[in-house]
Amino acid sequence: MKIGILGSGRMGGNLGTMFARVGHNVVFSYSRSAEKLARLARAAGANARWGNPREATQDADLVLLAVHWLNVDDVLALAGSTAGKTVMSCCNPLDADDTRLTIGHTSSGAEVLANKIPDSRVVAAFQTVPSEVLMSVFENRRNSPRPSLIFCGNDSSSKSVASALITEVGFDPIDAGKLETARYIEPFGMLAGVLAYETEQGPDWAYRFGRLNRLVG
Amino acid sequence: MKIGILGSGRMGGNLGTMFARVGHNVVFSYSRSAEKLARLARAAGANARWGNPREATQDADLVLLAVHWLNVDDVLALAGSTAGKTVMSCCNPLDADDTRLTIGHTSSGAEVLANKIPDSRVVAAFQTVPSEVLMSVFENRRNSPRPSLIFCGNDSSSKSVASALITEVGFDPIDAGKLETARYIEPFGMLAGVLAYETEQGPDWAYRFGRLNRLVG
Repeated sequence: MKIGILGSGRMGGNLGTMFARVGHNVVFSYSRSAEKLARLARAAGANARWGNPREATQDADLVLLAVHWLNVDDVLALAGSTAGKTVMSCCNPLDADDTRLTIGHTSSGAEVLANKIPDSRVVAAFQTVPSEVLMSVFENRRNSPRPSLIFCGNDSSSKSVASALITEVGFDPIDAGKLETARYIEPFGMLAGVLAYETEQGPDWAYRFGRLNRLVG
Repeated sequence: MKIGILGSGRMGGNLGTMFARVGHNVVFSYSRSAEKLARLARAAGANARWGNPREATQDADLVLLAVHWLNVDDVLALAGSTAGKTVMSCCNPLDADDTRLTIGHTSSGAEVLANKIPDSRVVAAFQTVPSEVLMSVFENRRNSPRPSLIFCGNDSSSKSVASALITEVGFDPIDAGKLETARYIEPFGMLAGVLAYETEQGPDWAYRFGRLNRLVG
């Protein structure tokens, strides 16, 4: 699969690297520093390149949106059309201080995004785990049980693609249903942040969801 | 410990029964049916009684608030003063249809409750697991690993009490910090509901939070 990465910070950088390592063709984009993009692509191996958002998007089968919420309009304008593509978003709609969700309960960042690009298929995923844990999950992907990763969306074929990607990078995908569930998933992402960064749980934090008999010994 | 149960539906009924079985003195209250309260108390064994909300509250060391959000004012009026007591709330601030949170992001049900009873010490707990799984968790409490249960509050001694109770009934307590975190815990409770009741996960659903190396094999 060809995957365009919009936003190459810790989330986009780690996820893009993982996608490249399992064999997808990845294009990193949207960093203030071209040197950083080049370094990311080099470190991610032969399947990774870098470019501008339009280059990352135009041939992509799937676009990962991993920018700060305040930069969504800017990166979408630079990316050009995403019509018909799956857009996987790990954005939480945070304010400039990263302290509060700016949308919720009656809507969500994912739903607002879907309204901005109505001809694309939006999947919300990866906003519920700290970026620090991603690479450890990837490196432990042969172990079991795996940590869970919750996602949601309205288009079943996009969700199949998302689910397969989530599995490839080492998580157990949990389908939470329609995109509207992002109203709860995004606050859960905030809760994950509180636990990872403000408690003794620490940023190497993950979660498992499931039937009790699969969680306990 | 003496524990008053305000609200004896599935959450309050199960939790009260579990508290009684581990040795606490429990008083069930606030059901439309006195017969139901009597049956609950009988089934919970020698440590359980039933009464009205005032009787459940007046001698209690800890009060469990397990009513529908729309009944909070009513049950608090019936209960009388909770000054100085720990009030453990598992209420999510749902609307009449149980479909939406009515408070959030800039506040939470737990914070609104704390403002209603400013001389009490509010702990938010048990709103993140389906009532159906409680008894199974209790019965499996000798097994490990245990499912997690997230809680928060502003008073450290009340939180110690809450943490001990959560442990006694079979969960691994996770302290999410101050009461304000209920803004994220309550939506996570909604997410738990979506997973338990609207997906193949099923209502025998629980979760584990933690460092990756404690989650994976």
